[in-house]
Amino acid sequence: MIFLEEAISIVRQNVTVLTGEEQVNLSQSLNRVLAHDVVSDINMPPFRKTAVDGYACRAVDMDKSLRVIEVIAAGDMPGQPITQGTCSKVMTGAPIPDGADSVIPVEEALILPDGTVRFTGGKPKSNVCELGEDIRVGDTPLRKGTFIKPQHIAIMAALGYHSPAVMVRPKVAILPTGDELVEPNEMPGVGKIRNSNGHQLVAQVISAGAVPVYHGIVADSQEVTEMAIRRALHECDVVVLTGGVSMGDYDYVPKIMEKLGVKILFDAIAVQPGKPTTFGVAGSKLVFGLPGNPVSSFIQFELMVKPALLMMMGCIEPYAISYRLPLATDYSRKRAERLGLFPVVINTNGEVELIEYHGSAHIFALAKAHGIASVALGVKQLKKGELIDVRPI
Amino acid sequence: MIFLEEAISIVRQNVTVLTGEEQVNLSQSLNRVLAHDVVSDINMPPFRKTAVDGYACRAVDMDKSLRVIEVIAAGDMPGQPITQGTCSKVMTGAPIPDGADSVIPVEEALILPDGTVRFTGGKPKSNVCELGEDIRVGDTPLRKGTFIKPQHIAIMAALGYHSPAVMVRPKVAILPTGDELVEPNEMPGVGKIRNSNGHQLVAQVISAGAVPVYHGIVADSQEVTEMAIRRALHECDVVVLTGGVSMGDYDYVPKIMEKLGVKILFDAIAVQPGKPTTFGVAGSKLVFGLPGNPVSSFIQFELMVKPALLMMMGCIEPYAISYRLPLATDYSRKRAERLGLFPVVINTNGEVELIEYHGSAHIFALAKAHGIASVALGVKQLKKGELIDVRPI
Repeated sequence: MIFLEEAISIVRQNVTVLTGEEQVNLSQSLNRVLAHDVVSDINMPPFRKTAVDGYACRAVDMDKSLRVIEVIAAGDMPGQPITQGTCSKVMTGAPIPDGADSVIPVEEALILPDGTVRFTGGKPKSNVCELGEDIRVGDTPLRKGTFIKPQHIAIMAALGYHSPAVMVRPKVAILPTGDELVEPNEMPGVGKIRNSNGHQLVAQVISAGAVPVYHGIVADSQEVTEMAIRRALHECDVVVLTGGVSMGDYDYVPKIMEKLGVKILFDAIAVQPGKPTTFGVAGSKLVFGLPGNPVSSFIQFELMVKPALLMMMGCIEPYAISYRLPLATDYSRKRAERLGLFPVVINTNGEVELIEYHGSAHIFALAKAHGIASVALGVKQLKKGELIDVRPI
Repeated sequence: MIFLEEAISIVRQNVTVLTGEEQVNLSQSLNRVLAHDVVSDINMPPFRKTAVDGYACRAVDMDKSLRVIEVIAAGDMPGQPITQGTCSKVMTGAPIPDGADSVIPVEEALILPDGTVRFTGGKPKSNVCELGEDIRVGDTPLRKGTFIKPQHIAIMAALGYHSPAVMVRPKVAILPTGDELVEPNEMPGVGKIRNSNGHQLVAQVISAGAVPVYHGIVADSQEVTEMAIRRALHECDVVVLTGGVSMGDYDYVPKIMEKLGVKILFDAIAVQPGKPTTFGVAGSKLVFGLPGNPVSSFIQFELMVKPALLMMMGCIEPYAISYRLPLATDYSRKRAERLGLFPVVINTNGEVELIEYHGSAHIFALAKAHGIASVALGVKQLKKGELIDVRPI
């Protein structure tokens, strides 16, 4: 059994970044990983422009009544320079005419009966955006490996990346194992339960920006399991099994893995839930054996598999952000040999509330959870108000 | 000008939930909104089962050597009841045989030379999951209006919802306005900039689980703008314009809205950036006029439009969670008449760091931001260590 940090580190050291990229439309690049740096081909602002609707003038003239010599819309070019005692009406985004260095905002301008304009504000501001103050030609606002969100789409659009290159996505085989499983369209007979893990994993793989390849339920037979893993290793970049990795007599999965050339690097982590988590490699392919209980499987995917998938796409921020937040109530647990993970709600005061949770089979506890809290190994109790790490889910 | 809370409240009061639902595959229901409550058709666990690999026995016998009478795998049915002095070997998830009330974990069991089993642990635990302890027939673990995440997929799978009904998605017309705009595939000429807002909005609409209908750049002409808005109101449930909503001479959009029967409910919010944000309704259709600067447009979409889209789908948690986190440095601003919003990074200590930010045109500031922090109206300064609200982006 190893610590969670060691497990995460072993996975990280064994990831090989996939080679291959594809060009996609801008909107299709959402939730993909950028394959190249985005380099600016322009200065932004590309010209000196006004930040407000108002009157472009000389700062030294702001105590005078100014004659309006033209109107400049966004997209127009100024026709005349500003000289002493003159101004031009400018719309937000319009270029600043030569000679001007300030803009009187329309809210701080009084139009006198003779049509001249007077500054009525307090402290004058320039209200001018200087050429290149946000970005200059050759700057690199987005690095290769950025996981693309809407705000990054804006940057790519602004810099002409209309069909950006994104990294290819890992194909992830999903193999739920166990004779006790039936698919969701069946009514489970005596001793059976519906397969929830497999479908949860499909959704988790999609959410991680990768491609799920759902295999269907793998029966508890050495031959069937071996065939399924062999095929998955052949077709996919990553293989995720659930169930079949603890110490039961029918849990021969680790032996099959070894037979298929999968080098097992760990098979237990000091976390609760999720202890019987197995990780191995076969060349550049990764194999994860996740616990059969759906809460364990969910959490271990988020902690281990998702960062691995993001790293395979070259993602530079593969680990989710945790927040340190105050507990709304006391917390205690009986045993503390492992790092404890459990679902929590964040209330409207920003405090962490415990929710009813019976253990790793209790998927319903996740229904309303906002996050997974973690309590360090060795810690049995925390007091109301103490800070606890929460990872949003 | 109204406060942000008022603006959010006005939007909320004017949302009409869309009627209409569609049945989709389980994995396609990800990031959609559930149209009906999910009701359990089973008990879970559906039978008394073991939480561990081990030996099912009677608690009163745990100080004795026990004879193993059978092996029960997950998916098997027990053949024999447990009586005094006997046990059955059980795999995790297997049913507990009649007569047994406890399971000795395999890690705490010693196999004696005669094949009998002895408990070697400290304090005995039952290790039995009782029938229905997680859910009972008729319970409602997921409510109508749940935004579906992977953990909810597991619950639906477990309860047989293999093709759940989800709410129809609002169609959102996106109309970037302004003669200064060119599309990303063009090199902007003098006085022009590439349209980043429109494409950012497409991505934001997708991220909100709705359907973008991108109109293309709307030229600064009253006739063209009127036609575009008329068509958008006809085809879509929500119309989002950017640009054209401040006080410039060419900003006739509000007038056109009124002509087309759009009742404007507010046209300025006391926030920075994002003050010139307009909201109106035409029957059950919503119209948002967002500022032309891309940071303002981004933030106002997240604050106003996204919750509205989620509410139109009946979503029960339409507002994003904010976290109250400590500042890594002092913060100050010159003016405090509006609620201040600005991009921040969360460092590895969980503290909030400021990043270089020139104002609402500075989209590059969002490249590395983890969230948008907010400072209350009236507050000019915050000290290192003080808590600040951060909304992840």
